[in-house]
Amino acid sequence: MKRNIYIDNMHLDEALRLWERKLSEAGCLNPMVPELISVDDSLNRITAEPVFARLSSPFYNAAAMDGIAVRFQDTIGASETTPVKLELNSQFQWVNTGNVLPPEFNAVIMVEAVQPTDDSTVEIIAPVTPWKHVRTIGEDIVTTELILPDGHRIRPIDLGAMLATGLSQLKVRKIPNALVIPTGGELVQPGNSLRPGNIIEFNSRVLAGYLTEWGIHAERNPIVTDDPGTLKKAICAAVAKYDIIIVNAGASAGSKDHTAGVIGDLGEVVLHGVNIRPGKPVVLGIINNKPVIGLPGYTISAVITLNLFVKKLADYLQGIQSSPASRLEATLARPLPSKLGVQEYIRVKLGKVGAVLTATPAGRGAGAVMSLVQADGFLTVPASSEGLGAGEKVLVELLRDEREIENTLVFIGSHDNILDVLANLLHRQRPICRLSSAHVGSMGGILAVKRGEAHLAGTHLLDEATGEYNISFIKKFIPDVSLQLINLTYREQGLLVARGNPLNIKNFEDLSRKDVRFINRQRGAGTRLLTDLYLNRLGISPEQVNGYTREEYTHMNVASAVVSGNADTGLAIRAAAVALDLDFIPVAKERYDLILPTIFLDDPKVVALLMTIRENEEFRLTVERFGGYDLSDCGKIMYRQ
Amino acid sequence: MKRNIYIDNMHLDEALRLWERKLSEAGCLNPMVPELISVDDSLNRITAEPVFARLSSPFYNAAAMDGIAVRFQDTIGASETTPVKLELNSQFQWVNTGNVLPPEFNAVIMVEAVQPTDDSTVEIIAPVTPWKHVRTIGEDIVTTELILPDGHRIRPIDLGAMLATGLSQLKVRKIPNALVIPTGGELVQPGNSLRPGNIIEFNSRVLAGYLTEWGIHAERNPIVTDDPGTLKKAICAAVAKYDIIIVNAGASAGSKDHTAGVIGDLGEVVLHGVNIRPGKPVVLGIINNKPVIGLPGYTISAVITLNLFVKKLADYLQGIQSSPASRLEATLARPLPSKLGVQEYIRVKLGKVGAVLTATPAGRGAGAVMSLVQADGFLTVPASSEGLGAGEKVLVELLRDEREIENTLVFIGSHDNILDVLANLLHRQRPICRLSSAHVGSMGGILAVKRGEAHLAGTHLLDEATGEYNISFIKKFIPDVSLQLINLTYREQGLLVARGNPLNIKNFEDLSRKDVRFINRQRGAGTRLLTDLYLNRLGISPEQVNGYTREEYTHMNVASAVVSGNADTGLAIRAAAVALDLDFIPVAKERYDLILPTIFLDDPKVVALLMTIRENEEFRLTVERFGGYDLSDCGKIMYRQ
Repeated sequence: MKRNIYIDNMHLDEALRLWERKLSEAGCLNPMVPELISVDDSLNRITAEPVFARLSSPFYNAAAMDGIAVRFQDTIGASETTPVKLELNSQFQWVNTGNVLPPEFNAVIMVEAVQPTDDSTVEIIAPVTPWKHVRTIGEDIVTTELILPDGHRIRPIDLGAMLATGLSQLKVRKIPNALVIPTGGELVQPGNSLRPGNIIEFNSRVLAGYLTEWGIHAERNPIVTDDPGTLKKAICAAVAKYDIIIVNAGASAGSKDHTAGVIGDLGEVVLHGVNIRPGKPVVLGIINNKPVIGLPGYTISAVITLNLFVKKLADYLQGIQSSPASRLEATLARPLPSKLGVQEYIRVKLGKVGAVLTATPAGRGAGAVMSLVQADGFLTVPASSEGLGAGEKVLVELLRDEREIENTLVFIGSHDNILDVLANLLHRQRPICRLSSAHVGSMGGILAVKRGEAHLAGTHLLDEATGEYNISFIKKFIPDVSLQLINLTYREQGLLVARGNPLNIKNFEDLSRKDVRFINRQRGAGTRLLTDLYLNRLGISPEQVNGYTREEYTHMNVASAVVSGNADTGLAIRAAAVALDLDFIPVAKERYDLILPTIFLDDPKVVALLMTIRENEEFRLTVERFGGYDLSDCGKIMYRQ
Repeated sequence: MKRNIYIDNMHLDEALRLWERKLSEAGCLNPMVPELISVDDSLNRITAEPVFARLSSPFYNAAAMDGIAVRFQDTIGASETTPVKLELNSQFQWVNTGNVLPPEFNAVIMVEAVQPTDDSTVEIIAPVTPWKHVRTIGEDIVTTELILPDGHRIRPIDLGAMLATGLSQLKVRKIPNALVIPTGGELVQPGNSLRPGNIIEFNSRVLAGYLTEWGIHAERNPIVTDDPGTLKKAICAAVAKYDIIIVNAGASAGSKDHTAGVIGDLGEVVLHGVNIRPGKPVVLGIINNKPVIGLPGYTISAVITLNLFVKKLADYLQGIQSSPASRLEATLARPLPSKLGVQEYIRVKLGKVGAVLTATPAGRGAGAVMSLVQADGFLTVPASSEGLGAGEKVLVELLRDEREIENTLVFIGSHDNILDVLANLLHRQRPICRLSSAHVGSMGGILAVKRGEAHLAGTHLLDEATGEYNISFIKKFIPDVSLQLINLTYREQGLLVARGNPLNIKNFEDLSRKDVRFINRQRGAGTRLLTDLYLNRLGISPEQVNGYTREEYTHMNVASAVVSGNADTGLAIRAAAVALDLDFIPVAKERYDLILPTIFLDDPKVVALLMTIRENEEFRLTVERFGGYDLSDCGKIMYRQ
């Protein structure tokens, strides 16, 4: 079996320079040709030449107010004590705003300052200066003057300026078009039935979506299977018709990765492989003076490389320079090791808690689409760095509006399915508000409160000595934080097993069986502590449990491992069993509380959250439908310090 | 003639509260009903309900790397000195990224770490941990988990998340629709021939453009003439079909202003008249639980009131909260008187020169469309203020991207038509760059340099004593500023007269003729000084010149006054005469220079400008085509200090 395992590892800066130079030499960076279109169709289009006024605006002397047109000479001397009387037609005429100023007059008096005495005379009590309340010809713009420069994106007000000066057509840049070609025998179109190994073809939609946002008319090709001949035909057809051709994927060095080979056969592979992660196996090519880009198959890698190697090209074709993403300085929440020699793009969540903006690295898997959905930004670890330390200042390139980040309620702590319900209700009530939750376990939540990184934490830690939940841990780890401990729910924890319980698991004792593969929660999770508590009571050591070291971060991931057969059982809440239709062996009823530092109690986001859990009927109904929850103390203050 | 001169003058805050309350009572703020659409069509649409994963992602255990699938147990003990040999099929299988992990295996080893020994065996030199390089079921998201909340605008990556979890349709909010009804007997559609008194109908395009940008599907009605019956019919039809109805204009109190009356007949006028300027005569109405808004006729007034009274409504209908415009603090360049009791919206230009961001009020005329095209932002003078002083800090609501403002080259000084050419060439070379020019005359330019408000100034001041241009003025007014004086052009100044010179004007002496109406330039303009110089030489006093006190700010406005017959002659450059096809009586050849403070000489915008005037062939050709220019010293340093 032939496998090409070698691809380049060019430094990103060098790659960008090389790509721009090659594109420039091939004429790929020249702006699109102009086309003549109606001003009415031109919103958001880019001017292809400077736009000059055809007419002056206004093109006649116009009354700027409702009132009377007069000769200023006739008004001289008017005062409250010596009003001046004017005769209709010979000395004044009624005019509305926008009316032509009759040529014999040279000023307008506002209607409010005019006292009609009879049908044909009026009195005024103040003189008027020449051309007062008259918009003279060309006051706004004079014929032949510049309205809009070349390369300008047309805004609503620009339509007005063009039309007002007599233009009804203009030349704009043609919209560049792009074709995204999805490749891979394992791909199936959305909506079709799936077999293991199938991949739903969604990358082309994501990539076309970004191209659309960048002003490109993006189309999608039908799926091309892993056959070099078919791919070659598709690329040839695309090169004849499109300005940008994206092939996704087959960019790597696997046995079915033909993109680089085909591009090389048809034209030039400018480079294959860049020292970035994710995104290394990108293929940049030029065929018949058209850019053909092979993007990696993982969605995150594809999006990153599209941004790096196609966005600027899209700008050039349109003759614009779009603003780079906004950046904010944030404090890194935890250490971030990185490989020397590789420039890493790290998705982060941002949390503004008090005055501090914290960046928390999110999942690094290149296939983790949800991690990008939930990310607030990217930070870059340069190739020359081995990583960043906790507390370091980092520059984060934003994926969301800064205001949205400021309106994000930061929850850190133990996972519970109720958090999804809260996130949704909060967003619906205040669409600018979001709940961002990081599931790092109960202890992680307490420590986040200690470090001031969360507005609130969720915790369900049982103190075996007292039988009390949470309070002794708060007293021990955050005694100096003024806070309220507010109950969210009581909930059932239990062992999740496949439908029908095929291995006949009855209780924790069965975890020591050799045939039972357990799936554990991460250290610091309340559920992990509960596991340890039960094992300890039974005298079962971790080494006796098959799978004790395998860790998941949420109840749902434990349930998922069981439902998929990757594990036979794990400890989780009943809601997770209900959601995935698993059998549930109850083990304990526990208390899940929210820790709310007093300083954030007046924050409108926190107020909205508390109102939701205390008063919102939909919240209660939804949670009760989940199963396994008891909201009898929900919203009640359990402890203050 | 019946004239309603009374409309309300409600305080803006009160008006906004009243409008929101009335809209809410009428159910006009409820989000649009949901509609089911394909995920493929959902980019930028707003979710109408929370979106949950239908499938886990991945939905099978998948290889996360190209390589071999193995049992981790078989790899224990492998090292460089004790490599482990694995047998194809029984101990390993080749897998590509994304392939199903065969159920008998539980880890993947990257292809780079695998040494094939023959066709059916490989060697490895390191052990692997369980589930290494495997994307387990639900790793990214577990079925039933929340992907997107209600009220979320769908981004490209969200398409991926929905499709990856098995969704191909979702419920989004219907797009609200709006109808803009232009009214007025004086309106004509663009492209038709015009008579004085006609107004090109462009407001509906501008208003529909803004509504489009806010996510509304906006349509335009044919023009409705000033007949209440016709208007009533149009509004009735619109109310049955659209979510928002905009009537423009007829909102004021003129004899043809029927909007308020018709809305009152059909439903309720919530209010008519707000204490803002521009924008006072707005009519807010509700007919059959549909908002019907009568906007003022002046474009600027209409745009301001649309923003104030319709934008939030558009948000509510979509179930979103859009971010307010960004704001920047700036220093007011000159005093800004304002009427007590009226909240004023002032268009400003912003200039970042050095570290200081300066806001310069632009034209206040509500009809001045170009002033909004050129504006960088709005500032608000509250009703309780009689105005703001020069140097006061003001908050400016931005109309342009902050980065574009930072990339704006600020020119202040004397007007010349060449500035349009420069603006255009600069923008084409560096699309993010703009040239913003304020025409305040030569002295105004020198004083702007003194105050640090301009990157460069344009000046053509003749010192009669020395016969020298500009230098003595620089020495007198800005002796401490380190600068270069760089020639832009020599140009001809002369008297502009109508084609054929009907009044037979020959020279400055004719300005004292009673039958000659002169149009002057503003104080501080080099051309004004030239006028005074010639009149003085001839012993003609200003009082002898008919029109001496009438001032325009640019050469083109002087030319416009002459071509329109508002004046018989004025002093201006030849290019203005050529542009408007006027006769030109040469008076002087003068030198026009640019003052460039040394501190800005390395600014890339200044560098680009200097390169353009010194080296750009298109610049020279365009300027020479204008006529009356001599570029022989263009770009030459005339003086340094």
